[in-house]
Amino acid sequence: MEFTVSQVAALINGTVEGDGSQKVERIDKIQEGKKGGISFLSNMKYEPHIYGTASSAVIVSEDFSPSKPLQTTLIRVKDPYSGFTQLLEAYAQLTKHTKTGVEEPSFMDKTSKMQDGGYRGAFSYIGKNCSIGQQVSIHAQAYIGDNVKIGDRTIIHPGARIYSDTIIGNDCEIHPNVVIGADGFGFAPQEDKSYKNIPQLGNVILEDHVSVGSGSTIDCATMGSTLIKKGVKIDNLVQIAHNVIIGEHTVIAAQAGISGSTEIGKNCVIAGQVGIVGHLKIADNTTIGAKTGVSKSILESGKTIFGYMGYEMKEFLKSYSIFKKLPSLQDRVKELEKKQ
Amino acid sequence: MEFTVSQVAALINGTVEGDGSQKVERIDKIQEGKKGGISFLSNMKYEPHIYGTASSAVIVSEDFSPSKPLQTTLIRVKDPYSGFTQLLEAYAQLTKHTKTGVEEPSFMDKTSKMQDGGYRGAFSYIGKNCSIGQQVSIHAQAYIGDNVKIGDRTIIHPGARIYSDTIIGNDCEIHPNVVIGADGFGFAPQEDKSYKNIPQLGNVILEDHVSVGSGSTIDCATMGSTLIKKGVKIDNLVQIAHNVIIGEHTVIAAQAGISGSTEIGKNCVIAGQVGIVGHLKIADNTTIGAKTGVSKSILESGKTIFGYMGYEMKEFLKSYSIFKKLPSLQDRVKELEKKQ
Amino acid sequence: MEFTVSQVAALINGTVEGDGSQKVERIDKIQEGKKGGISFLSNMKYEPHIYGTASSAVIVSEDFSPSKPLQTTLIRVKDPYSGFTQLLEAYAQLTKHTKTGVEEPSFMDKTSKMQDGGYRGAFSYIGKNCSIGQQVSIHAQAYIGDNVKIGDRTIIHPGARIYSDTIIGNDCEIHPNVVIGADGFGFAPQEDKSYKNIPQLGNVILEDHVSVGSGSTIDCATMGSTLIKKGVKIDNLVQIAHNVIIGEHTVIAAQAGISGSTEIGKNCVIAGQVGIVGHLKIADNTTIGAKTGVSKSILESGKTIFGYMGYEMKEFLKSYSIFKKLPSLQDRVKELEKKQ
Repeated sequence: MEFTVSQVAALINGTVEGDGSQKVERIDKIQEGKKGGISFLSNMKYEPHIYGTASSAVIVSEDFSPSKPLQTTLIRVKDPYSGFTQLLEAYAQLTKHTKTGVEEPSFMDKTSKMQDGGYRGAFSYIGKNCSIGQQVSIHAQAYIGDNVKIGDRTIIHPGARIYSDTIIGNDCEIHPNVVIGADGFGFAPQEDKSYKNIPQLGNVILEDHVSVGSGSTIDCATMGSTLIKKGVKIDNLVQIAHNVIIGEHTVIAAQAGISGSTEIGKNCVIAGQVGIVGHLKIADNTTIGAKTGVSKSILESGKTIFGYMGYEMKEFLKSYSIFKKLPSLQDRVKELEKKQ
Repeated sequence: MEFTVSQVAALINGTVEGDGSQKVERIDKIQEGKKGGISFLSNMKYEPHIYGTASSAVIVSEDFSPSKPLQTTLIRVKDPYSGFTQLLEAYAQLTKHTKTGVEEPSFMDKTSKMQDGGYRGAFSYIGKNCSIGQQVSIHAQAYIGDNVKIGDRTIIHPGARIYSDTIIGNDCEIHPNVVIGADGFGFAPQEDKSYKNIPQLGNVILEDHVSVGSGSTIDCATMGSTLIKKGVKIDNLVQIAHNVIIGEHTVIAAQAGISGSTEIGKNCVIAGQVGIVGHLKIADNTTIGAKTGVSKSILESGKTIFGYMGYEMKEFLKSYSIFKKLPSLQDRVKELEKKQ
Repeated sequence: MEFTVSQVAALINGTVEGDGSQKVERIDKIQEGKKGGISFLSNMKYEPHIYGTASSAVIVSEDFSPSKPLQTTLIRVKDPYSGFTQLLEAYAQLTKHTKTGVEEPSFMDKTSKMQDGGYRGAFSYIGKNCSIGQQVSIHAQAYIGDNVKIGDRTIIHPGARIYSDTIIGNDCEIHPNVVIGADGFGFAPQEDKSYKNIPQLGNVILEDHVSVGSGSTIDCATMGSTLIKKGVKIDNLVQIAHNVIIGEHTVIAAQAGISGSTEIGKNCVIAGQVGIVGHLKIADNTTIGAKTGVSKSILESGKTIFGYMGYEMKEFLKSYSIFKKLPSLQDRVKELEKKQ
């Protein structure tokens, strides 16, 4: 899609300084800008790049006063970063998720209903008694089981599997190959040391504005619901077991795993490859560093936890710095022993 | 599906105390029970909830003697927990996996055969020369390669990929987006530091009653078979490399990874995010704690292993408790040095 | 597929000693050989097996002089291991990826083009303006978005999702259920503690000879490209975040995770379950041991890094060996304190 610099400036309430009739069709980093690209300069560390950039235009602050001659056209705005973000969003809206209608062959049971303005891609599957809101995208090859409810403007990407009885709110995004609502890991040990399936009868509920990253898995509850509250953002390849509850606006980075029945508070930050054992409570505003193992509940709000068996990050780091010097500590003890 | 309380009681050999004609249609936790739900009371810690529950009926022990008036109908059985489990199973049978027949479009090569009583979902794919047993479900969008054998009553969920030459036993469950039998990670380093593919010619064998969780991957053997024995239960996002052997009734929790050619005994418990390096032997009845790294064979049966480079759990925990106090241990050494 | 022993010998420039007219149809390990199988003997540790093997033929060195009578036919070659590898490759070529043409139903937008000699499986999806090279396999149920470019002889396995604007080189292999080019984890925190999507406008580029293992995820760049250079081999369930760059011929084992904007050099070896935080630089020829957490850049080439917060492997192992004896070290300090 091609615009003139003046059109872009109008979009973000900026004023043009230079040739507003140039065409731009791409967003470039200022240090990698090429003709037809538009860049921004917010952090002044990057100022030297503006004098050499080949970008056709650069979004700058109203106050920006160049110290050398420029080859590029300027778009002056109050706050270049938020101007740029506005532009990103407009661009994304124009270039992404623009498909509507139904591609064939696709499968939707006649008992299911989808409101207007949506998209169903080829080879997508929708089971019985589903109720799907307005402007929902069910991309190619996605799977929706029976009795699923999906709110407005939610996007289900290719290959995502949404199992029966799942409830998904408005404005959610379920990335490719995510699995939501499949059976959890419930097996009762028998006397002969074999295991017997425990039927998993619950479901998964995702409230509004939840995002789930590619390949992540969220198991259904044994009974009741696995619950992901409003605004939770989950990265790729994350495992969330049955009956877990995750509080509002908590973020969980890639490859983290949360075991069964654990409850996580709101506004938490859980870094990559963290593992949390089952049946714990994690207080609101907890930060858990990458690769931390959490084996005890965290009851006080606002802590930062880290370590193989995690505890207060500062304490762990102190101990770890001495761990690195253990050979010398051992030598010092030897020395003391000799001197006796 | 709706039943009367008396019908449920008959199903689990119980006797009704109260109104047996009420309709129930759902299984609820006793503390969250609502009208139309049925709950159970086994652990007496939960007794207070029975006096306030809105569940239409509660399964209780024959001996249960209420200490306050009840609003709910009772179903008395010998053992409320196993009565409840029976009910769960009956309920699961009624509500799950009830699809049969063939949904179109689906793809099955004319050289492949599927016995009676099964289900093939829309957009499922079955290659050449496959032999598939009775009452098997191949759900929508699942993939079966060539020369695959699948036993009776096995369930292949949506988006699972079963590669050519895989053999799967009876009563297995392969959850959504599992990959079984794709090429393992075999590359021969060349003199120019590039890598060359080593052809992976083996297959994967799953014996009876094996369950594989969503998104897990089990690679085919380089030669011979990657072998998952009877009753093994594998959770979500687990990686099992080429030529691994896993003994009967071993369970492996989410995000664990087993490297190539390692042999794991029977009745082992491998917790979440464990990593086991290649070419090891793990004895029967070994328990490996969450996040443990295993870099040596475990030859004695019945051990519990834990730690970053795992060894006896008790020993690791002793050392870790001192690790947490290392700053003070270091101070004590300093103090001793001063006093010399 | 069946061959005579003489045909196999001709294929690998060997000479037959014994009955060249026997049929062989399979490659077996020498210790597990059965009639109709062909094995090899390269490492003389396995010599005892040749006297008992039931393999119909064994590939041996020109110099091999048996110390006992043999039941099997020999194929003598200069180097049995490379003869065997040759055979594996020939076998793999005969048995794998032999599908060509188009299976229906499949979906390809009319604006996309695929060169000759390729395969499109049933239920595969190809969006708009894609340009796909010669002899490319797009297997059943695979997804290709819009504006994707794929080079010659590349294989896209079932259920792989290749998002819009991705560029994939020649001779790449994308295993089942891989996700390439989906949105990265980019969210801007808002004043009310919620998060707002940052549009992800970049793409992913895979150069030639790249392999990506089952279920792995490679996110698109926020702007610019996530770049996987020539010859990189990625195992299963690996996470690669937005804007990561991975140098030529680097290998990454299963379940490792690389956070956003990190640059990894060439010829590195990254073992299983490693985690690398964002915005780091890892020098060429770095080896990172299994389960290592990397939180700092590694600027010197050729290092071997290991540990929970990784540093020089030798140093970590020294400290860890003392960690295991911490209880006794603590006792020694106590003893010294008493003696004062």
